[in-house]
Formats: sequence, C-alpha cells, structure tokens
Amino acid sequence: MHRSHTCWELNKSHIGQEVTLSWWVANSRDHGWVIFIDLRDRYGITQTVFDPIDNKDAWELANKFRSEYVVKLTGKVKARMEGQANPNLSTWEIEVIIVKAELLMESKTPPFEISDHVEANEEIRLKHRYLDLRRKSVLENIVFRANMNRFTRNWFSDKGFLEVQTPIFTVSSPEWARDYVVPSRLHPGQFYALPQAPQQYKQLLMVGWIDKYFQVAPCFRDEDPRADRHSCEFYQIDVEMSFVEQDDIFQVAEWFIHDLIPTVTPNKRIFVPKIPEGIKKLIGRDWNVDWRFIKLTHKESQMFYGSDKPDLRFDMHFEDFTLDFNKSEFSVFKDAVDNGGCVKAMKMDGVNMSRKDIDEVTEVARGGWAKWLAYIIYEEEGPRSPILKYFSESEIKALQDRFSPKAGDMIFFWAGSFKAVIKSMNVVRLALRDRFNLVDKNALTFAWITDFPMFEIDKDTGKVDFEHNPFSMPHWWAAAFDNPNVEEIYWVQYDMSCNGYEILSGSIRNHDLKALTKAMEMVWKSEQDVKNKFWAMYNAFQFWVPPHGWFAFWFDRLMMILTDEENIRAIYAFPKSGKAEDAMMNAPSFLEPEQLEELHIDIREEVKEELGLD
Amino acid sequence: MHRSHTCWELNKSHIGQEVTLSWWVANSRDHGWVIFIDLRDRYGITQTVFDPIDNKDAWELANKFRSEYVVKLTGKVKARMEGQANPNLSTWEIEVIIVKAELLMESKTPPFEISDHVEANEEIRLKHRYLDLRRKSVLENIVFRANMNRFTRNWFSDKGFLEVQTPIFTVSSPEWARDYVVPSRLHPGQFYALPQAPQQYKQLLMVGWIDKYFQVAPCFRDEDPRADRHSCEFYQIDVEMSFVEQDDIFQVAEWFIHDLIPTVTPNKRIFVPKIPEGIKKLIGRDWNVDWRFIKLTHKESQMFYGSDKPDLRFDMHFEDFTLDFNKSEFSVFKDAVDNGGCVKAMKMDGVNMSRKDIDEVTEVARGGWAKWLAYIIYEEEGPRSPILKYFSESEIKALQDRFSPKAGDMIFFWAGSFKAVIKSMNVVRLALRDRFNLVDKNALTFAWITDFPMFEIDKDTGKVDFEHNPFSMPHWWAAAFDNPNVEEIYWVQYDMSCNGYEILSGSIRNHDLKALTKAMEMVWKSEQDVKNKFWAMYNAFQFWVPPHGWFAFWFDRLMMILTDEENIRAIYAFPKSGKAEDAMMNAPSFLEPEQLEELHIDIREEVKEELGLD
Repeated sequence: MHRSHTCWELNKSHIGQEVTLSWWVANSRDHGWVIFIDLRDRYGITQTVFDPIDNKDAWELANKFRSEYVVKLTGKVKARMEGQANPNLSTWEIEVIIVKAELLMESKTPPFEISDHVEANEEIRLKHRYLDLRRKSVLENIVFRANMNRFTRNWFSDKGFLEVQTPIFTVSSPEWARDYVVPSRLHPGQFYALPQAPQQYKQLLMVGWIDKYFQVAPCFRDEDPRADRHSCEFYQIDVEMSFVEQDDIFQVAEWFIHDLIPTVTPNKRIFVPKIPEGIKKLIGRDWNVDWRFIKLTHKESQMFYGSDKPDLRFDMHFEDFTLDFNKSEFSVFKDAVDNGGCVKAMKMDGVNMSRKDIDEVTEVARGGWAKWLAYIIYEEEGPRSPILKYFSESEIKALQDRFSPKAGDMIFFWAGSFKAVIKSMNVVRLALRDRFNLVDKNALTFAWITDFPMFEIDKDTGKVDFEHNPFSMPHWWAAAFDNPNVEEIYWVQYDMSCNGYEILSGSIRNHDLKALTKAMEMVWKSEQDVKNKFWAMYNAFQFWVPPHGWFAFWFDRLMMILTDEENIRAIYAFPKSGKAEDAMMNAPSFLEPEQLEELHIDIREEVKEELGLD
Repeated sequence: MHRSHTCWELNKSHIGQEVTLSWWVANSRDHGWVIFIDLRDRYGITQTVFDPIDNKDAWELANKFRSEYVVKLTGKVKARMEGQANPNLSTWEIEVIIVKAELLMESKTPPFEISDHVEANEEIRLKHRYLDLRRKSVLENIVFRANMNRFTRNWFSDKGFLEVQTPIFTVSSPEWARDYVVPSRLHPGQFYALPQAPQQYKQLLMVGWIDKYFQVAPCFRDEDPRADRHSCEFYQIDVEMSFVEQDDIFQVAEWFIHDLIPTVTPNKRIFVPKIPEGIKKLIGRDWNVDWRFIKLTHKESQMFYGSDKPDLRFDMHFEDFTLDFNKSEFSVFKDAVDNGGCVKAMKMDGVNMSRKDIDEVTEVARGGWAKWLAYIIYEEEGPRSPILKYFSESEIKALQDRFSPKAGDMIFFWAGSFKAVIKSMNVVRLALRDRFNLVDKNALTFAWITDFPMFEIDKDTGKVDFEHNPFSMPHWWAAAFDNPNVEEIYWVQYDMSCNGYEILSGSIRNHDLKALTKAMEMVWKSEQDVKNKFWAMYNAFQFWVPPHGWFAFWFDRLMMILTDEENIRAIYAFPKSGKAEDAMMNAPSFLEPEQLEELHIDIREEVKEELGLD
C-alpha cells in the first residue's frame, strides 16, 4: 500500500493512528536537529516531523529531500503543540512523526518554478503542461470543467432528455465551415469527415422518435484559432426536441442556466436589468417578463447595441437622432442624413474622462471605422463641446428629452451609414466598459437575440448565400420566399448572448421538405444539388418528420465566462496553441511514407519541394 | 403548443381534462361510424376516438389518417367503458374524445415495415437507420447506453475520480495499431492523429498531480472491423490512478462491476463458480476469496482453458495426462510425448452426443488445428471408445482419479504440441458450450488474467517485439531484463474476462525512466529512438513521476454482453457497417479537389488511375 490517507484527510480524529503518505515534498525546514517537511498533494498539505530519536535512517534520508521529490512516509499522527498550529493549513491541528521513509523517485530541476503566483512564459508552460497542471489555478479550471460536465449531463437526463452518442466519423459537407477529414484505408481515395456538429444526426434522431435528445458533443471545425474559439476540437451542449415551438426551447435553456449558475458558480448572479426607456418606447413592449431572459430581435439588437451579442450588463444603448438633426448646421450630421445615413448618440453616466482618455477612445472609434468621435461633456457649469456651437435649441432639447444628462455624464455622437455607425458605436461602447469598469464582474446578463436574417447578398457578385444553417424554418414557411426582398426573409433562429459573448445558437428546424428544398434552391439552384449534398436528410424527410427545434450552448465559451478567463485555452487540460499546435506532444507532425501509402494519399509536390521532403 | 402530454402519461387522473397530443398514428379502426385511432410515441400508446357528433371536420380528416402519419389532436380525456379496457396498453383506462385534428406531415410508404418483430435486411435498415430507431429493441439499446454512461460517470465522480477530457487531436505513434490521421491545413505536410487511447495524456495527468482520473473516452483505431470491435470510433471507461498497486486497482474495477450490474441489468447475476479440484491441486490456492473475482495468471489460464479470456461460467478445464500416458500403447499419445508434446483431456458432464454431434464437433476440432478428436463415452454399461483397447489399467485409473466420470459423461483427448493442443481444446470447449447450452445466459463470470508475458520473438526473424503496451512495469523492474530468456519476462499487466470476452485491460505503469528506457531498447535499440518516439513522456518522466497504474473497460463490448447482443453494431445509435461505412450518410466519400489542395495532399496516382479520377 502506497498511502492510507490524502493530505487533506488527516485531522485531530486520527491522532494516535499510524498512517502512510505518498506524495511530493513541498518544503523542508531544518530546526537544528529535528527536520520538518511539508508533504503536498492536490488536496492539501500535511506537516511531517523527522527526529533521529524516532528513526535515524528516516532522519538521514530526510536530510536529502528537496522540493518536489516523490516520497513515501510512514508515521504516527500527533497533536501539534499549543501555539504551533498553522491556520494556513487545512490539517493544521496535527503533524505526523515519521518512523519510516522511502524516496520513490528522484527528479531533475523543473524548467520553471511551480507556484500559484509566478507566471512563467506560456510557451514553456504548454510544452511542460504536466508541470503546469500542478498550479492551483490550472487545476481549478479542470475541476470546474468536470463539475460542469457532470451537472449538465445529470440535469438533462433528469429532465427526460436521452443522451445519444452520435458518430465522430461522418461525411463531408463543404458548404459550412471547413471540415477536418480522415483518409480511409479500406476505401481508396475516399475520406471521412469529423462532424462540425452532430446536426444531421440529431435531426435524424427526431425522425426516429427520440423526442428529447442531448449530448455534450465534441465538434470539429478547421477554422483559424482565436481567443474564444479553440482550434481542432471543441464541445457543445447539444439539444434537439420534437413537437416544440420557440418558447418551449427558450424555457428549457433558461431553466438550465437558472439551475446551473448557483450550483457551479455561487459567486456569480444572474442580473436582468430594466429595459432602458428609450428602447421600450420604440419597441412598444418590455424586453423580459418575470424571471425570463431579455429578448430582442436581431434587428433591434443591431439598432440599439450594434451587435448580435450585446453586453447588457450596462445600458449605453444607441439613440437615433437622424430626424432631429436633419437640418443641422453641423455639416457632418447634415451630410450624413442627406446621403441616406443616420445620426446616433449614446450616453455614459458619471465618468470623468481626461484628455488622454478621450484621445485614446477616439483612436478606438477610428479602428471601428468612424472618422472621428464627437462628444458633449456635461459639467456642473453646463455642457461643453467643440461642436456645441452648431446645435440649435431644438436639437439641444432633443438631447435633453432623450438622455436627461446630469453633471458628469458624456454623450458621444456618430454620423454616417447605418452599418458603419453601429459598428463603431459597438466598439467604443465595449472599450468604455473595459476602460472605466462599467460592469459588475460577477453579474451575468443573458439575452435572446431572435429572428436572424436568412440570406446575405454578396455586394459584388449579387450571389445569394445563407447567413446561417439552412435547415432552419423561415417565418411563414415556404410562403416566406414570396418576398422579393430576400434580405428581409427571417428565420425562426436565435442566439443567446451573455456579457458580450455568443453562448448559444439554435432554431426551429425546417421540417417541411418543400420549404426546405425551396430555401436551398435559392442558393444552390437545383433540387438534384440539394439531394446530393444532403442525401440522408433528403431521404429521411420523406418519412413523417415531426416539427422540431434545437439549441447548442458553446460549452467551452460558457466555461470561459464563468471562470473569468480571457482565453479559451485556459479551460482545456491539454490545450492547442494559437497555431493549433500541441507543443507538449509535438502535434501535428510528419508521417512515415508507409503510412501515407497505406492511406492512398501523398503530400502535394509543391509542398514537398518547399519542405525539402523526399 | 404541440402537446400537453406524452402517450405514456395519460391515465385515470386526467379524466375530464383537455389535452393535446402530437405523434404518429399507430393504427386506425373504423367501427362503422366512430373511428378509433391509436396514437403512438416512444413512451406508449393512447386510444383516441373520432365521432362526427363531437366534431365533423376532425372526423373527416381522421378518415384519411394512415399508419405513421404525424398528427396533432386535441380532445377530452374520458374513462373507457367497462369491458373495453385493453390490458396491453399502459394507458388502457382512458381514451381521448377528439374535437380538433391537424395533419402535421404527410409521408411516403416506408421501405420496410416498422415492427418490433419483423427483421428486415440489415443493409436496408442501416441505410434508413432513422426508421430502424423506431423499433423497440433498437431504442432499448440506445437507452441502455445512456444509462450505462450516466451510471459510470456518476459512479467514478462519486468515488473521487476527476473526469478530464483529453485531446482528440494528437500525434501519431505508428508503433501500435494503425492511426487514423487528419491532414493539417495550417502546417503543410503535417498530420494530427486521433488517439488510439488517451494513454500518454492520462499518464501525464499523473505527473500533474491528478491522482484519480477517469473518462468515458472516445478511441480511434484503424483496424479491420469484427463482431466485437466497432470500426472508426469506440469508447472505453478509462481510469488511471497514482500511488496504487495491482490490488488497489482490482478493487476499484470489481467494486464498479458489483454496483453496476444490479443497477443497469437486474436480470443478470454475478456468478463466481467454485474452483475445480484439479486446478486447485496444481496451483495450490483458491482462485478467489469472498466476493472477489477469480484470479488466474496468463500462464494458468492458457494451461487450463487455452485462452486469455476464458469463459468460466462452466468448468470443462483441461487436465494434463502427459506423464500418465508417456508409455501409452496408443501411438498417437506416445509419439506426441516423445516429440516433447503433451496429452490433455477435458470432461463434459451428462450430455448425450449423437453420432452427428460427434462428427460436427470433430470438424470444429479440425478447424482448431487438431487432426482428430479422441473421446470416451461413459454409459451405464461402462466406458465405450474406439481407443479404449489401447489403454492400460493404470491409464484408466488416472482418468478415474482425475475425472470421476459418471454415466452420461464424455472425456475428450488431445495430443501434440502444447500450443496446438490448447488452441484446439479451447475452440472445442466453446463449441460444446454453444451446442449444448452449458451455461446460464444470465450469469456473468468475471476473471482477472494476470502476469502477461512482455515480449514475443518472431519465429522467423528472431526479432523481439512487445506483446503489449511497453509502458507497463515488468515484475522486478529493471532487474527483469537480466533474465536471458526474454519470453519469461512478465509484466504487471492484466485483463478482465467475462463470459469468454476480454472486457478490460490494464497494468501497473513503468514509472522508472531507467527501466522504461531499458525495456524499449530491447525492441528499438537506441535511447535516441525512444526519445523520438515518446518525446512528451521522455521529458515528463524526468520530473517526479509517482507510481501509477490503469485500467480501461471496453465499454461497447461490455454493453454488448449485458444486452445479449452478438454484434457490437447493435449498441451504437448510428453504427458503421462491417466495411466501416455509414450507409445512411454515404461515408466515407470523395472530396472536392479544392479541399485536397487546401490540405496540401493528393490522392496517389495509382489510385486515381484505378478509379478513373481526374
């Protein structure tokens, strides 16, 4: 037996017992004669005591112990002397008097200090991830992931959802994101694809009577890595349900979040802010009811926050002043309106911006495609701004009516085309949030963004393409396509945003083969094309398809938000780098020529030449 | 709202309520005026009643309903008339009087009848798996898999094991089974490999202080499919623990099985048969203690059952008569012994074999590399056999002493080289089991097979190779290699067998870099080779590696046994065929030339020519 207890378990109740502990040496203190060694495992720390009177061999060996050695110690648990108790240790009430010691493994000096406080260079830490894992913050994220997995699977199972493991080897659909592919040895020249999501399989489960499906599903998309998207594989909480309408799905997702947050992150709170008056007036309804999440259409979200994943923990919504300033003496406003553009503004409450702040935020606005940033500062003495002199009384009144500015507030202005203006306003709004800490870090504000547009039209070629997954149902089913303005056809499709991130996508599916074929023909022209691209779905949808819908939480991104991490790598035990590499394992790597031959493939000539292969 | 209840939920307590049901039409019975339609969902069946007096439109529509139509019906729950209750329906006490009906989707006639009893051709069923899923036996296996997953994950979490999701994109190790590989777009000419198992990652977790790891892990091996091995991906219950010895690991695995079986398959029972006297006499110990599983070494298992995965639900162990028959007058026995071979026999209790039985079992023995099958039949009048005339009195006595045959028993004999004899005996033993139903189908007999040999030597080339995973610890660590007979070096490595299947593998790892390097040098010669092949492990094992060990249950195969299925495909929702194809999705498939180009690969010229590509 290597150990009778972990370091976290031993306490007063064990006094007098003989115990065996195997783990790493945390530190060693030589008090002249007696040696004190703290033993550490992932659960806690226990103090051990070596006295040559108890056992000379053990004491002699202990003299050689250094930090991080793996040792096995046997001894008797004893109460600590009065006054020696160490309140920083979970097992501070006892120590273990060692009578037998064994060195299990010697070790080289590590390439970086293993400490919860020192941050070594990320490259070194990823290369030696097995040492990095010993750091408390890294371990905590792994434990958090395990808790999230467990809670999620049990929650959905308890609610009657059936977990189905869908295939990881499937067929390529080059229409969406790029596929990762696997050459087949048994079928020369052919390839499997790894699923970008289990989408087709889970829809087929609905045809197969599994009316409530879920899976914490591995997904694979060959996209370039970024901070909130892990390269190679990622996970989604994948759900599909039959005989549901949009609100049935919303209730399940909200219910899950309401149960999840207090369980896995009790330090966070779900915060539903009151709807800003300016928005309520325009949309003519409240944005949430009771405990339900905020609901905005895609169009509204763009109009008021310039984003389909708005951070709604703070207000600063956009007010439109196009009509108010259509006769402005300020030529920038006037020109914008005359050219079919808009004038918009947002207010920041009670922040004193310095000249430097203003300059830097202006730089941000420039990066966000605005030429300049106009503003009014409201001081005790009244408003102050370089452009104030152009404003008429009615224009000042319009600002007053809509923003009721107080001393200390600022109003920022934009003018130009709708798309450019809201894009820049969004960037500035988020920059101000970060610069002036406008949000409560422990608040989580969730919002549904609904009614996504179905198609986008390429400006240059005029080609119609899907904005999103074409398997969603348009509002009004097949009749939707009677609208000659295809950019105004909307899906029953939705995202959930949280604190400025997209954390869920979903839709009601198009289960009507006629409407589905029609939608696809808008983009791919022929029914034959649709049949070829979606063979299984085309076949299956001829046989009693129930109405159905889905959502998928971006599981990793949700964890990233809940753990306050800024890069998605932090919630993987063994993450890929920003270049999609595993520096610890040296992946990817070159293969042996025989492997390529067996798989019936070869590296392309131009690459071989460039790399000097062959 | 599409439905207020599932068909399984409605009962007497709902009488008088208005309900909405959406599902498939099971069947329709026209009683002259009133139409009765059974509505079916995956939970149950509910009878609905259409009377033109209640609602004429609904009644008219119901006239058109055919089996499998998707309909949405609204009506009032009513008690059935006395005597009309149908005991075959779970909701037999009520029926629903329909006042509103809607046809949600029409449908084509299915390619096969969807029935729990009719078995359509497997090829058709796999192509239309979404229809096959509606069959009860298929659904039950999917539900079983979900239950197994849930029980397993919660069990290991409850026992303090930390679930870690290890990477699915890793590096190729061409030394073991064949890897599936994924070409990298960002790193021209390089490839990821999908993990054959998370082995290296989980060992690195041990270096990283995660002392108890588990995962229901997807694994990928490019092996040819067979009945108990799914192609492409499969799953294992993957466990690694630090500071453990072999028996610590055995206890965890046994404890899991003891908790699992009564929960997920209450109709099965764990059966630990008494050790046969002949085995006990030779090994000098019992084969199990108390509730613990049977334990045999690899050598013992081969000797007594000719297999490293013996079915121990029934006895028929092999007895050795080499010494007893070394002066036999029966030349076949004598020659075998003179040539260094052996004479072995096994007894079958109380089965009357016909001439035809004997002929057919002899054929089986021939397929198992025996030239013929000698036997004695014990009848009321005494033994009967063509070879009895050669037997001396002492030889008859030896048989009597070891087998105590009774009337109705049979003894079968083999003579020849040890390897050929036990191989044939094993095949015949299992054939007799199946032919004469020698086992209780609901019994599960688990056995540990321990101390696997480390190396095998190629007969022709003399090349030494690993019999199994080289990361296991040999008995006696580095000193093991002082043994000049490398075939007698044994690992601390084990399998668990159940009813003739291997359902678990594991070992104590070699955590001593010196012994590990030495083992690998036996096969790959240079330390540099070892460094190149196992870069991450070689690096990591320099830093305080704790003693550790592992096991992995072959999850799919375990489920196959527990559900009495004979092919592993039956426990996958969307299985691959025997040719590693997904007939429903048409995977694998050819890619677009642009995809190949982007991945820097090409199909080999010879394959292109053969397939007429380009």
